[in-house]
Amino acid sequence: MNKKTIKVGNLEIGSNKIVLIAGPCAIESEEELILDTKDLIKVDVYRGGTFKSRTSPHSFSGLGQKGIDILNKISKTNNKLSITEITNANFIPEYEKNVDIIQVGARNMQNFELLKALGKTNKPIMIKRGFGNTLEELLYAAEYISKEGNENIILCERGIRTFENSTRFTLDISAISVLKNKTPYPVIVDPSHAAGNKEYVESLSLAAVAAGADGLMIEVHSNPEKALSDKEQALKPEEYNKLIEKVEKVANAVGRSI
Amino acid sequence: MNKKTIKVGNLEIGSNKIVLIAGPCAIESEEELILDTKDLIKVDVYRGGTFKSRTSPHSFSGLGQKGIDILNKISKTNNKLSITEITNANFIPEYEKNVDIIQVGARNMQNFELLKALGKTNKPIMIKRGFGNTLEELLYAAEYISKEGNENIILCERGIRTFENSTRFTLDISAISVLKNKTPYPVIVDPSHAAGNKEYVESLSLAAVAAGADGLMIEVHSNPEKALSDKEQALKPEEYNKLIEKVEKVANAVGRSI
Amino acid sequence: MNKKTIKVGNLEIGSNKIVLIAGPCAIESEEELILDTKDLIKVDVYRGGTFKSRTSPHSFSGLGQKGIDILNKISKTNNKLSITEITNANFIPEYEKNVDIIQVGARNMQNFELLKALGKTNKPIMIKRGFGNTLEELLYAAEYISKEGNENIILCERGIRTFENSTRFTLDISAISVLKNKTPYPVIVDPSHAAGNKEYVESLSLAAVAAGADGLMIEVHSNPEKALSDKEQALKPEEYNKLIEKVEKVANAVGRSI
Amino acid sequence: MNKKTIKVGNLEIGSNKIVLIAGPCAIESEEELILDTKDLIKVDVYRGGTFKSRTSPHSFSGLGQKGIDILNKISKTNNKLSITEITNANFIPEYEKNVDIIQVGARNMQNFELLKALGKTNKPIMIKRGFGNTLEELLYAAEYISKEGNENIILCERGIRTFENSTRFTLDISAISVLKNKTPYPVIVDPSHAAGNKEYVESLSLAAVAAGADGLMIEVHSNPEKALSDKEQALKPEEYNKLIEKVEKVANAVGRSI
Repeated sequence: MNKKTIKVGNLEIGSNKIVLIAGPCAIESEEELILDTKDLIKVDVYRGGTFKSRTSPHSFSGLGQKGIDILNKISKTNNKLSITEITNANFIPEYEKNVDIIQVGARNMQNFELLKALGKTNKPIMIKRGFGNTLEELLYAAEYISKEGNENIILCERGIRTFENSTRFTLDISAISVLKNKTPYPVIVDPSHAAGNKEYVESLSLAAVAAGADGLMIEVHSNPEKALSDKEQALKPEEYNKLIEKVEKVANAVGRSI
Repeated sequence: MNKKTIKVGNLEIGSNKIVLIAGPCAIESEEELILDTKDLIKVDVYRGGTFKSRTSPHSFSGLGQKGIDILNKISKTNNKLSITEITNANFIPEYEKNVDIIQVGARNMQNFELLKALGKTNKPIMIKRGFGNTLEELLYAAEYISKEGNENIILCERGIRTFENSTRFTLDISAISVLKNKTPYPVIVDPSHAAGNKEYVESLSLAAVAAGADGLMIEVHSNPEKALSDKEQALKPEEYNKLIEKVEKVANAVGRSI
Repeated sequence: MNKKTIKVGNLEIGSNKIVLIAGPCAIESEEELILDTKDLIKVDVYRGGTFKSRTSPHSFSGLGQKGIDILNKISKTNNKLSITEITNANFIPEYEKNVDIIQVGARNMQNFELLKALGKTNKPIMIKRGFGNTLEELLYAAEYISKEGNENIILCERGIRTFENSTRFTLDISAISVLKNKTPYPVIVDPSHAAGNKEYVESLSLAAVAAGADGLMIEVHSNPEKALSDKEQALKPEEYNKLIEKVEKVANAVGRSI
Repeated sequence: MNKKTIKVGNLEIGSNKIVLIAGPCAIESEEELILDTKDLIKVDVYRGGTFKSRTSPHSFSGLGQKGIDILNKISKTNNKLSITEITNANFIPEYEKNVDIIQVGARNMQNFELLKALGKTNKPIMIKRGFGNTLEELLYAAEYISKEGNENIILCERGIRTFENSTRFTLDISAISVLKNKTPYPVIVDPSHAAGNKEYVESLSLAAVAAGADGLMIEVHSNPEKALSDKEQALKPEEYNKLIEKVEKVANAVGRSI
């Protein structure tokens, strides 16, 4: 199927270039986000949770509005784009103004009211596959957005739930070619959430690029041991830089650039 | 663990009595709802989708507000309680006024914004387990509601996603005793959605009651072939009545009534 | 579909009577088997592993031939039937002589060479569903036996592998009615292996009988804390007796006896 | 963990070189095997089923002994190695003489009697992960072989069973790095069986090599439409050759050769 390219600022997602999204699981403070990002040599989009969906109501759920302000400020300062998750359709105007790409999290993939509301904007929407959802359901979820008029859709594979427990989720690497076969939308892979373990992020990242992914979303934290969430899976900035060197070689091998 | 009883009108959910919830997948019209319900001999709560979560944006998604009015009218006329799914926190005032039990659907089990908003009401909330979610996650979802002050929580097992494909989902019958072990909330079982096939509804219903469920939610339609959704799994009223006779025998065998 | 009855001694498996199979996971010694079984009030078949399939080569794998001799002796002494697992087709003559029902374990459900060899005997074969296998595959496995001429087949549901981890496996309660719908063979349920936790054995046993199972296979050990395998899931004899009282009530409620 | 290299003829499996295994699902005739293999530009090992494990007893289960003779002859003629599946320990002497690498199929991964018997040989054994088995169980299965003295073990990931149905199985790409982390054995990936669809074989093959796999096992047939089994997933020889060109580039990008 023909590929669709989503233009965000100067970035074209779904083009020959592999898009690199990196940052902490959650925005913790302006100082911490500066530390997390300042040494990243190659990155296109800063990520960081602000309004976070957490399984337990007792887990850190983000700084909310303040987190968006920090992410926006640091991204603009460094001439990067920004992405963060939305959990409530009432906040859309705020996101439209201050965020470059709006993320729908795995747990809200079938929150159809949210999808329909996002379909009425023109913003690029990255929708993550629910860990219990089929690829067909992911495509229907995308259709809830496009049906309202917004075709700026990016799909994200981040692992599904299986019986295997040596990784947190099972990255469905086949999803890349299946989605490419059935839809024109770009496909991003999130190896960090899939693995739940930094040891496996490199292997999954290289696999995703070789398999045809249009980008990677990787968790980076300056001091993973102290991260407020998902500390097991975050790379340090220097580890990220080394990984991206390898990613570039594999990207080139399949005729792409970073 | 001690059992908690949720009082709704004259009904006590979680008591010795097995609660019977029945009705069509979706409210189609007042006439149809009358046909669907008028011959049901034993039933406590009328169910029927009004604002429905559908995988595809092209499927019938309910009559919305008009559906709630119909459900409310027919339930009151027959001196029954009503339950229907909510998909948008903005509609809570409407549901508070016109619906007896508010249902959170499987696809919204981790829509935490919705859960928190429902936690600020006093309404009984029946939360269905997401088909990709663990029981631990269901309990955390319930905690999002209780943390805001609403303890009127009812849990519902409706089948999980597995590799087995002779049923639409796999009813996790163990969920009943696991939940009873870990939480005081009543547990309802929805055999219709789990099976996706009316042939298996009887067997699953009897199993659920024997296993200790506090109630059943069963799809009934006067003319399943013409139902606007989920036609394969709806029982006809006379089939429902025969099933309930058997349910009563099993309920009595485990020391309960209907 | 019509039901097929498998006659073993005076027992008819698949008849109106619910068949009760009980005993330890593994035969540990003659003394222990006597302790495990002497207080069981109602039981038709003694079970006990002799040549056991164990995930790890370091786990206790049974007494082998000696275990069969013990099981045979104690069963005959008490006028009960016996069942034990076979793992090697070369041992069939030994099993034919000394065991009443031969069990194919879940891990060997698709060991087709073993199935074909068992198809050449006249022995009743109870084949357990593999935890990663569909019901369709279980029926094909049965066909490997019947195609060779042996129609004395009993099917056993013992839980499948899913993402849920509060039980060891997920008992697929729907399997009972699906199998009854597609095949004439009796269906036995093993709640002990499915749950992996004695707390849940009662609930699953009652559910299985209500759902239409033709029998139960339950692990019993006189001193579960000291059992050489699967100690978490074994009932004590007195717990088994209490469970069977409840099983009888549910069996009666669905028109059957024990 | 240190890598172990398995030497077979002049081939070192687990070395810097990516091992290429190709051939038809089943050996159908000498003429067909010649057609299937004569145009393959780069390949180290010829594969082809001879004694096959088939889900249904009505499916083609291979030529048996005659198949082994054909595979042996054509492999030797072309100076290639051979691999085929074993299903019965009684045939080990035959395999020892005429086959270079003995394969244990997914359905026999926990046929412990077979594993123990293979552990008593010195042959290289490639053991495929069962589609319902965890990686931990795969490692235990390998231990059944090594415990008897045979350390010539090769592991193979071939997809696991999940709820996703757009591919036949879900290739667990994480298995490569997890196994590398926990064991010294080489890891081969079988993208053909995982995908069940030739459209996805290229993407999965490149991903596997990028992720660190030590080899690929790919189904090739001169005329897939007429193949006696698994016709949907076989590549034609010319498609295979094009794929291997791409595989080589990715292999080089991660510092390996073919």
